[in-house]
Amino acid sequence: MASQDTSLPPETTGAAAKTAERYEGGHVLKLYGSWFCPFVQRSWITLLEKKIPHQYIEMNPYKKDPAFIKMNPRGLVPTLAVPVGAHGTEQKPLFESLVICEYLDEAYSDEDKYGKRLLPDDAYERARARLWIDHISTRIVPGFYKLLQHTPDKKYSIQQARDELHGHIRSLVEQMDADGPWFLGQHISLVDICLIPWAKRLWLIDHYKDGGVGIPAHDEKWKRWQTWMDAVDQHPSVKDTMSSDERYILAYKRYADDTTESLVGRATRQGEKLP
Amino acid sequence: MASQDTSLPPETTGAAAKTAERYEGGHVLKLYGSWFCPFVQRSWITLLEKKIPHQYIEMNPYKKDPAFIKMNPRGLVPTLAVPVGAHGTEQKPLFESLVICEYLDEAYSDEDKYGKRLLPDDAYERARARLWIDHISTRIVPGFYKLLQHTPDKKYSIQQARDELHGHIRSLVEQMDADGPWFLGQHISLVDICLIPWAKRLWLIDHYKDGGVGIPAHDEKWKRWQTWMDAVDQHPSVKDTMSSDERYILAYKRYADDTTESLVGRATRQGEKLP
Repeated sequence: MASQDTSLPPETTGAAAKTAERYEGGHVLKLYGSWFCPFVQRSWITLLEKKIPHQYIEMNPYKKDPAFIKMNPRGLVPTLAVPVGAHGTEQKPLFESLVICEYLDEAYSDEDKYGKRLLPDDAYERARARLWIDHISTRIVPGFYKLLQHTPDKKYSIQQARDELHGHIRSLVEQMDADGPWFLGQHISLVDICLIPWAKRLWLIDHYKDGGVGIPAHDEKWKRWQTWMDAVDQHPSVKDTMSSDERYILAYKRYADDTTESLVGRATRQGEKLP
Repeated sequence: MASQDTSLPPETTGAAAKTAERYEGGHVLKLYGSWFCPFVQRSWITLLEKKIPHQYIEMNPYKKDPAFIKMNPRGLVPTLAVPVGAHGTEQKPLFESLVICEYLDEAYSDEDKYGKRLLPDDAYERARARLWIDHISTRIVPGFYKLLQHTPDKKYSIQQARDELHGHIRSLVEQMDADGPWFLGQHISLVDICLIPWAKRLWLIDHYKDGGVGIPAHDEKWKRWQTWMDAVDQHPSVKDTMSSDERYILAYKRYADDTTESLVGRATRQGEKLP
C-alpha cells in the first residue's frame, strides 16, 4: 500500500478556524471537509456565500472516521450530510464538489433569504456557465497541478506547463464580463467559486517553483484577470475559508516535490486526467 | 499529425437515417452530430424524447466544415446551435453532451408540451441523479473503452477489464429503483439517457472480443440490469437514433484493434481519463 500524507495537521487555522468554530453548533446539515482541500473550499464558500446554516466538520482524509466512510463509500471530502425525512433528523449523503454546490444553490433558492442564485436564470446562460465550469475542472485545475508538480525529470519543461496553464486561464478570461469584477458581472457565481480555491493557491507555485506562476502583474493583457483576482482577495466567503499561509506551505510541499499520494497528485504524476 | 479515421461513411443509416430525414427541415435549433458517436446520441435522444422541433445535421468529425468550426472552436460533436435574439434568427453554440442535455431539459420545461422533466424536481433527488450520471461518465464509459480496446499486449488482462466494467455497472444497478424499468422508476431520465448509447454498443464487445462482455443473461444477480436493457431496446427515441448494425461494426473496428485516433480512443490507449 502506498505511503500516505499522515503528517498533515488535521485542523483549520487562521480565518478558517474562526469560521469553523462559528459553524460547529451541531446543525443537521453537515459539511465534512479538510482545510487544505480546494474541492472542499468550493462547497464551503457556497455555504457561506448563501449564509446557509450548517455545521463544518474537519476530517483528516488520511485517517478516516468509520461513521464518515459509512456515509460516503468513496471516502472522499467534501461530503455533505443532507437532512431528510419529516423531522429532518435523518441524513443522506452527497459528494462531488460541483454536485454539492449545485444542490445548495437549488435547495436554498429563496433569494430574499439566501441572496442571488449562483447560476443564471436564463437556460442558455446557465448552460454557458456550466461549459466554463467544465473548462475550469478539466483544463485549468489539471494545469495547476501539472505546473506545481513539475520536477526536472519530467518529460515536459516547466515553461511548457506554465504556458499551458496561462493558455487555459486566458481562454476563461476572454469569456469574462467586460466590466466585472466577476465572471458574469457584478455578482459572484459558481463559475467563480469553482476556480477560486486554485486561484488562491497560485502563490504556492511562486513559493516552490523557479519563475513561479509567471503571470505578469502589470501586463495590459492580464488586466481583467487582475481585476478578478482583486475581487477574490477581498471577498468575505473566500477570506473566511482560508487557513494560515504557513500551513498551506506545509500541505503543498509534497505536491511541489511530486511525492504526494493524494488522488489528484498521483493522477497528475501518471499523466492522467484527474479523478 | 496522427492518421485519422477518414474512411468512415459520413451518413446515418437505418432508423437514424429516417429520423434525420424527418428533422432536416431547416429548423433554427440545430444539432450537429455524427451517427456513430455515443455522446451525440445522448443529445439526440433528449431532443426526440421531448419532441423538440430541431434540425439534425450529420457532420463528419474527421472532415470538419469551417462554418461548424467557427461555431465550436473545440471542433467536437455534439454541438447544438441555439436560436437567440428577438427573432431567433441568430445562433449561439453549446457543446459537451451533458451540458446540451441539461440545457434542453431546462429550456423546454413545459411538461404539457414536452413531457415529464428528465431530472427529478426534488433538489436532493436531482443531485443524486447527477452523482450517478458522474459515475456513468467517469467510470462506466471509460470501462467500456478499456474492455473494447483490450489487446494482448496490454498490461491488464481482458478479464480484469471485464470485471472492472461489471463492477461499475453493478454499482449503478444497485441504485436503480426496484420496480423500474428505468433508473428512477416508471419514467426515463437523464441518468438512463447518459448510459444508453454505450449500453446499445455492448454487443460490439461481444462481436470483437473473445468471451465478450460476459454479463450472464439469466443470472438472478443481473435481473434488474436485464429489465433495464429490455426497456432500452424497446424505447422509441433509442431505436430512432440507431444506424445499421453493420455500420457500427465498421466504425468500431479501429477501437477493437486499438488503432483509433479519436480522442476517447487515444486517451484510453494511453491509460488516461477520457477528455
